[in-house]
Amino acid sequence: MKSYHMDWDEFRTAGKELIDWIADYHEQIESRPVKSQVRPGDIHAALPNDPPETGEQWPVILKDVERHILPGVTHWQSPNFFAFFPANTSGPSILGELLSAGLAVQGMLWETSPACTELETHVLDWLVGMLGLPDRFRGNGVIQDSASSASLCAILAARERAIGDLPAGDYHEAFGRLRAYATSQTHSSVEKGARIAGLNVEQIRRIDVDENYAMIPESLAEAIRADRKAGYIPFFVCATVGTTSSTAIDPVERIAEQCAGDRPPWLHVDAALAGTAAVCEEFRALQRGVERADSYCFNPHKWMFTNFDCDCFYVADRGALLKALSILPEYLRNRATESDSVIDYRDWQIPLGRRFRALKLWFVIRHYGVEGIRYHVRRHVELARSFADWVRSDDEFELLTEPSLNLVCFRHRDGDRKTEAIEHAVNDSGRAYLTHTKLGERYTLRLSVGQTSTEYEHVERVWRLLKEAAAAV
Amino acid sequence: MKSYHMDWDEFRTAGKELIDWIADYHEQIESRPVKSQVRPGDIHAALPNDPPETGEQWPVILKDVERHILPGVTHWQSPNFFAFFPANTSGPSILGELLSAGLAVQGMLWETSPACTELETHVLDWLVGMLGLPDRFRGNGVIQDSASSASLCAILAARERAIGDLPAGDYHEAFGRLRAYATSQTHSSVEKGARIAGLNVEQIRRIDVDENYAMIPESLAEAIRADRKAGYIPFFVCATVGTTSSTAIDPVERIAEQCAGDRPPWLHVDAALAGTAAVCEEFRALQRGVERADSYCFNPHKWMFTNFDCDCFYVADRGALLKALSILPEYLRNRATESDSVIDYRDWQIPLGRRFRALKLWFVIRHYGVEGIRYHVRRHVELARSFADWVRSDDEFELLTEPSLNLVCFRHRDGDRKTEAIEHAVNDSGRAYLTHTKLGERYTLRLSVGQTSTEYEHVERVWRLLKEAAAAV
Repeated sequence: MKSYHMDWDEFRTAGKELIDWIADYHEQIESRPVKSQVRPGDIHAALPNDPPETGEQWPVILKDVERHILPGVTHWQSPNFFAFFPANTSGPSILGELLSAGLAVQGMLWETSPACTELETHVLDWLVGMLGLPDRFRGNGVIQDSASSASLCAILAARERAIGDLPAGDYHEAFGRLRAYATSQTHSSVEKGARIAGLNVEQIRRIDVDENYAMIPESLAEAIRADRKAGYIPFFVCATVGTTSSTAIDPVERIAEQCAGDRPPWLHVDAALAGTAAVCEEFRALQRGVERADSYCFNPHKWMFTNFDCDCFYVADRGALLKALSILPEYLRNRATESDSVIDYRDWQIPLGRRFRALKLWFVIRHYGVEGIRYHVRRHVELARSFADWVRSDDEFELLTEPSLNLVCFRHRDGDRKTEAIEHAVNDSGRAYLTHTKLGERYTLRLSVGQTSTEYEHVERVWRLLKEAAAAV
Repeated sequence: MKSYHMDWDEFRTAGKELIDWIADYHEQIESRPVKSQVRPGDIHAALPNDPPETGEQWPVILKDVERHILPGVTHWQSPNFFAFFPANTSGPSILGELLSAGLAVQGMLWETSPACTELETHVLDWLVGMLGLPDRFRGNGVIQDSASSASLCAILAARERAIGDLPAGDYHEAFGRLRAYATSQTHSSVEKGARIAGLNVEQIRRIDVDENYAMIPESLAEAIRADRKAGYIPFFVCATVGTTSSTAIDPVERIAEQCAGDRPPWLHVDAALAGTAAVCEEFRALQRGVERADSYCFNPHKWMFTNFDCDCFYVADRGALLKALSILPEYLRNRATESDSVIDYRDWQIPLGRRFRALKLWFVIRHYGVEGIRYHVRRHVELARSFADWVRSDDEFELLTEPSLNLVCFRHRDGDRKTEAIEHAVNDSGRAYLTHTKLGERYTLRLSVGQTSTEYEHVERVWRLLKEAAAAV
């Protein structure tokens, strides 16, 4: 009788072929245009309208990946990828994701796979030490899919702490008086998270930034004071260590000082990209004051060779978070939960189910060792500084800010249109990919150096490409 | 110079070894206790307190998986796993997750990897046909991590449609008047989602259920009428096709009728487990009326051999969802988005980033073919029916409900304590794993038949185990 399942011998053959395919892909990745050159609808048009009634053979499927999918892939793992922030990965991380898929356990409760929970807490404790984070984060870390979800969880915990104990009749009146504080440079997920949590855009105060696009603590203090006086409830402050536009560094310590006092707002520190840099002693000062944060996150899936999704989120005190997100229906009750001696991570996140994501992070840290991660972070910062030097001494291009880490913001002196034309020329060439932002209304190119395999030659080459494009457009 | 990276030849060796390891694991899975037997803290205690300063070799890492992690794993892929709902997987799905990790692209925007977006829309369109879903879902499907996140997105879209256009001053007053409708059997994620979205528990009305634990449409109509009269705003109704406790089937068509009229509440249909069954014509009647839903979800990661996370979420009209979740900072602007000819899935979900999850679903459908999926779904339902027959004709155990699909709810006639003792005896034996719920205050065992490799012999064996436990405890 036909079983339809892929038997495990067939899996062995197909899996090994796919391992080779992936290795080949990475070894040859520079032969492909970094940014996919397809037009909207191309991929869709190449695929059959209906699913197959009868199963197909693996070699046919893999061939279609090559033929129909790859042309539509933008190669995030190319060493010539300088766009957005990196979402880098590495061999040990891919193996971790493979093992997670192979075991295919659910980590929603400690009980549903104890190792999935305990390894996660354990590895996140390792990171507390590796990054010089405060001891009160120990035992209070969890992997989220993204910094967006971490921000949302922080906002929900903050909302809970501020108004969660009010009776239902007073809740929405107080809700309308909540005020959150961020800057124009804060990641968009904070506004999105606040809206999801039920706030109006008007309830998010935009605090002024200085000439380096960092929050001005005195302006925050003033806004909180004025809002309290007007009867509002300051409940949430987001400080960013390494903004998305320009890696600006909000001064966490001085911001924390403004939050202190009676009924302080919840201080969340978003270090999605830059947090990894704290593995090097010399960059830890960037997040000085983090020991006073109520919550903190950074993304190993950005700059720690661990593939998406892997955001590490810590809280100083888990009480408000759990109160905001806990719910225990009968079908999830079990002896371990009731013994109160375990963590059930379903209460620390938006979804119920969760994959075994700690494996990839564990593999990466063990494979590289702390010194290996440190080495590559330093190397990326050096490469970005070299690039910034070339821009600084160039007569066509100029820097928009001094790079704090591995991101360089620059533009052509002829202005926005020229700068944008250069961006498109480079990206359309397929030889490198970089994206833009606006700083002080000026169209600004961003060169983000963080891909696993990016080396000096790639940075030098994209600089030549930019110069050629400037001459041509 | 030492690079610290795993080079691609080392990856080939390690990857192939891991492929064999996973195949061995599955082939020998029945030799392990289904439910992990470790105690709280065991895994943590076995691991070193500090991360390694210097990198370690792959064979050492893999050995630690075997030694330290596996004892703490509950084997969700065992054919003797009958707990919760299944979270099944299969060879082609593991390969899909591996390829996704290998390519490691970000699908937040069409532009950031067009194939990641277009394949997803395409495969979700396939499923519209496969499951007999309404045509208006075509082009309006998206993969979420879980049904919890789908419920939250549905609630947010509903909230947007109901009060999103109100001026800020009126927003929170109206917010307090919102009312959502569910039953005592609705999945806990709907309450969690409503709370995340800013509602009080008091704003969620629990509609009465009938003797099969299904929503009574007349009670819903009455509640909506009374709430409208009292000045409340009925904005969201959740109908469940296959509840978590007992696979009860809320009558979608008659519920939809109660929602019709002026300013109708948003109707979300949660078919997380049962949706897959619609691949068989004979089970489609269970979700009759789905063509009138505003949104719908089901989980291929439960019963379609596709590993977690993979929830398919559809909306009839994407307008309110996008209005609730869109945000476009400068650093994400690009020509494709501005051409308005593409989907940017970041606006369809809570997080910003996203993996290439369509690959595994595409592989599964192509490998099994529609007939293969249909075959296994029918087989699981048959097995559950056989088990129900044994219970029905037994003098010790009794059925609590007639199974609608692949879940059997039953208990020992001697009552709660005996039933619970039997559950623990079976689970502690390591030979099978099943969980419980409460139906009408009665402690109820749930036998959920949906693991990929579960066959007649496994169902027969767990029945024998239950009988033995009943005799022994």
